[in-house]
Amino acid sequence: MNFQQKLEGSIKKNNSLVCVGLDTDITKIPKHLLTASDAVIAFNKAIIDATADLVCCYKTNIAFYLASDVDGLAALKMTADYLKEQYSDVPLILDGKWADIGNTSEAYARAAFDVIKADAITVNPYLGRDAIEPFLDRKDKGIIILCRTSNPGASEIQDIEVDGEPLYQLIAKKVVDEWNKNDNCSLVVGASHEQIRKVREIVGDMFLLVLGVGAQGGDLQKTIKAGLNQKKSGLIIHSARSIIYADSSEQFANVAKQKAEELKNQINQYR
Amino acid sequence: MNFQQKLEGSIKKNNSLVCVGLDTDITKIPKHLLTASDAVIAFNKAIIDATADLVCCYKTNIAFYLASDVDGLAALKMTADYLKEQYSDVPLILDGKWADIGNTSEAYARAAFDVIKADAITVNPYLGRDAIEPFLDRKDKGIIILCRTSNPGASEIQDIEVDGEPLYQLIAKKVVDEWNKNDNCSLVVGASHEQIRKVREIVGDMFLLVLGVGAQGGDLQKTIKAGLNQKKSGLIIHSARSIIYADSSEQFANVAKQKAEELKNQINQYR
Repeated sequence: MNFQQKLEGSIKKNNSLVCVGLDTDITKIPKHLLTASDAVIAFNKAIIDATADLVCCYKTNIAFYLASDVDGLAALKMTADYLKEQYSDVPLILDGKWADIGNTSEAYARAAFDVIKADAITVNPYLGRDAIEPFLDRKDKGIIILCRTSNPGASEIQDIEVDGEPLYQLIAKKVVDEWNKNDNCSLVVGASHEQIRKVREIVGDMFLLVLGVGAQGGDLQKTIKAGLNQKKSGLIIHSARSIIYADSSEQFANVAKQKAEELKNQINQYR
Repeated sequence: MNFQQKLEGSIKKNNSLVCVGLDTDITKIPKHLLTASDAVIAFNKAIIDATADLVCCYKTNIAFYLASDVDGLAALKMTADYLKEQYSDVPLILDGKWADIGNTSEAYARAAFDVIKADAITVNPYLGRDAIEPFLDRKDKGIIILCRTSNPGASEIQDIEVDGEPLYQLIAKKVVDEWNKNDNCSLVVGASHEQIRKVREIVGDMFLLVLGVGAQGGDLQKTIKAGLNQKKSGLIIHSARSIIYADSSEQFANVAKQKAEELKNQINQYR
């Protein structure tokens, strides 16, 4: 089963397009967990147990694990292993936004898929196709390419006009026409519904990972309407801090569950 | 002392523009080292001891350490610590080609500068300035931005014409005009001397990290001539595999020393 099939399975089973971001920062997790030596893993397991039937997938951004200390990578792998053992039908996206040259990119692909054993990876298109080829070659994995990100400065490079269209749209076309030979590509898009609509027009039914969406109904509705594909699916709606750090008491996992459920229901209302 | 001052010091002291890449892959290091539990560290220490008076800096690409296993990050940090303890005047570049959004980019900066304690980092410009701002804010560190890489597919995005000039030149101008407020930016350029000459014209005396240079005298000569700044410096010439894997016998460190010295002398011949 490849990433897309696994993802479609969990979307159907849990009736959810929500992706919870396990961007676990030791300085932000509930104080009562800090007495344990494996506080990050304890936190991640509690969040996973509380939300695994409410999400279509999880995403871990490797930056937070690298920043915690040299044992951060072990915590990330133990989280991935736990998910695979306990909830094997829920896929994991590793968010690295990586790209490098030849044999280095191969090393990154090994790190993502053979060490961490993620189901999908985010990659950066700036170095061109050959820099992400070792990822693209992994037919069973999801390769999620940055297209139009949601940060304030994204326009600086991604909206540069190239022959009358912004660069991010040219990237979307390249992915569809040239990079998606193994039918394993998706795109990262920010939460502006105009941009999401444009990308949806270009990519057909391809999955879009939507970062930076607010919990406000208005924006969310427009985002969903603009982004759904013809099967009323094709979106992975990511939310991290407003779910996992919604509460810092001993009830944090229950509150996270409520927040994930609210987002799931809000999204489904507009599907 | 900031990165650039440290780098200028080691260039002068060792009379060298060579950067040795410690891209250590457990499958490629000499067999006789594999009996030790810390084979990667033993290899790195031997290469550093053999070459520390022949280089201006070292570069470690994090991909190789992530790919080795969950303890790879510890090996990277021990290598960085060893360099700092034994050869404190030789700076270390961490090659991550990272960029991410807001608080995630801050986590990457902490990983690079507070966990690994590198002197400089490579970053990817595709997400715009705010995505690398947490790096740029570290005045004492070197921020080395991908401009024109040396891989075969680099042209696909980086040479796209924007108002009559290739994208990579627009990036170089942005860095000089807008991103280099703390005077801590450098650029990554590939080994085509025409491109290096163009970038040198745009950036003045700024340091350029040159990846993908061959050991052939002809190309090297043109690269050096095109890339030197007015002080007959401003270049960091990276070489990894042709130095560190030149020999796989027990003499590997001596052979690496010879190769590093040859490259240093070839470069100096053209300065």
